Amino acid sequence: VEQCDPARLELTALPNVPAIRSGDDLSAVIADCARDCAFTFADGDIVIVAQKIVSKAENRLLDLATVVPGQRARALAETVNKDPRLVELILRESRCVVRAQPDLLIVEHRLGFVMANAGVDQSNLAIEDGGARALLLPEDPDASAARLRDRLVARLRVAIAVVINDSFGRAFRRGTCGIALGAAGLATLVDQRGKPDFFGRTLRSTIVGTADEIAAAASLLMGPAAEGRPIVILRGLQLAGEISPASVLIRPPVEDVFR
Amino acid sequence: VEQCDPARLELTALPNVPAIRSGDDLSAVIADCARDCAFTFADGDIVIVAQKIVSKAENRLLDLATVVPGQRARALAETVNKDPRLVELILRESRCVVRAQPDLLIVEHRLGFVMANAGVDQSNLAIEDGGARALLLPEDPDASAARLRDRLVARLRVAIAVVINDSFGRAFRRGTCGIALGAAGLATLVDQRGKPDFFGRTLRSTIVGTADEIAAAASLLMGPAAEGRPIVILRGLQLAGEISPASVLIRPPVEDVFR
Repeated sequence: VEQCDPARLELTALPNVPAIRSGDDLSAVIADCARDCAFTFADGDIVIVAQKIVSKAENRLLDLATVVPGQRARALAETVNKDPRLVELILRESRCVVRAQPDLLIVEHRLGFVMANAGVDQSNLAIEDGGARALLLPEDPDASAARLRDRLVARLRVAIAVVINDSFGRAFRRGTCGIALGAAGLATLVDQRGKPDFFGRTLRSTIVGTADEIAAAASLLMGPAAEGRPIVILRGLQLAGEISPASVLIRPPVEDVFR
Repeated sequence: VEQCDPARLELTALPNVPAIRSGDDLSAVIADCARDCAFTFADGDIVIVAQKIVSKAENRLLDLATVVPGQRARALAETVNKDPRLVELILRESRCVVRAQPDLLIVEHRLGFVMANAGVDQSNLAIEDGGARALLLPEDPDASAARLRDRLVARLRVAIAVVINDSFGRAFRRGTCGIALGAAGLATLVDQRGKPDFFGRTLRSTIVGTADEIAAAASLLMGPAAEGRPIVILRGLQLAGEISPASVLIRPPVEDVFR
């Protein structure tokens, strides 16, 4: 009988999220926005928050005028056609440069992400005092997700999980796709190896990047200007597997055949 | 006023999808399953179908006993620890080998996808007559999606889009993620470049792989054994941009810095 009901997932973007400023408590923002639109949280909900508002709340905004590019940044900036101050910031945020060519700078971020520009973002930032500003990734997105989750659980008294998402470019495929930058309270990588399939043959290598699929789904609703709808709630996902941070989704260089 | 309503997406997996056999009309299967669970299609719905059932309906199943591995396949099979007959099939489906090492064979599929094993799949296939069988990707997934869409539109008389999804491994990130193998009736790649953001600064390079995000979202509900829930309907996405096939999501080798 239960089998006759369709399985459902629901994604809800909270409306009217205010501009986020340094020091804002995102758990209060989320609770207020939900209350204002009569959205009620439930156990098992996954709250997906755009990286940009987490970075802003954590004051990861830098005035480019204060950045003095070194020699390496100036040389690299010529190669990639970018502002030398921006390249200096990118290098400070990175372990190494993975690919550099005109209009393309892919690095290994200090946290391990292989990504364009170390996630340093100039778009969607208000220009104040005539100065250009740049936004860095959160210091530790898994820790940010864990803190936000703790506060949300305390405030709302429901068992929820948190994912911080970002848009990454990809090898081999065009277009960006949402990925999980940080996570708390869910299995980010679900190992389906060894479970028999319908005909008894073993599934040999199905390890699913569940948190990245969650991040991608939320990204559909957030849209490109993530500040418009930066908070999305996913309801209905049957969470299985051992809880892990988003950092387990990063493929260690030793496993990586595409460096 | 409208602004106060939360934006919503809903994903529904149709229950009780029967085992698909060669020659089955998937549009009839989808219509029947929807009717049986009282799901009514609406204009703007996106139907996401797992690659496996499309391949089965198109009779892309091969008996491995009929495959004679050539010299190249036998040598490569030693390197990658796989059945030489399976490697022969993979090579026949491929333009070139991208990476080969123990337990890993990444190729450029004849359609351009950079993927493990050219999508040739041994899991979830009934073993009949004692013979091992393998399932290939559809001959032309965009054409499969277009045919299925035409039939669904004619049968249901609603304006829907179709995505055929698959699970791909990824460079730099662990775990598989749903991607769009074929598509019809929607913008698979949405170019947000040039649209001003909230503060008037131009978004310089936000091209979103929308169809891949749709495929990933559906994958969450399908689960790993895609034959369990291989048909998912996404409702609520505001479709924008020019309609394109899923093939535009393939990054041409000349653009690709990770070969």
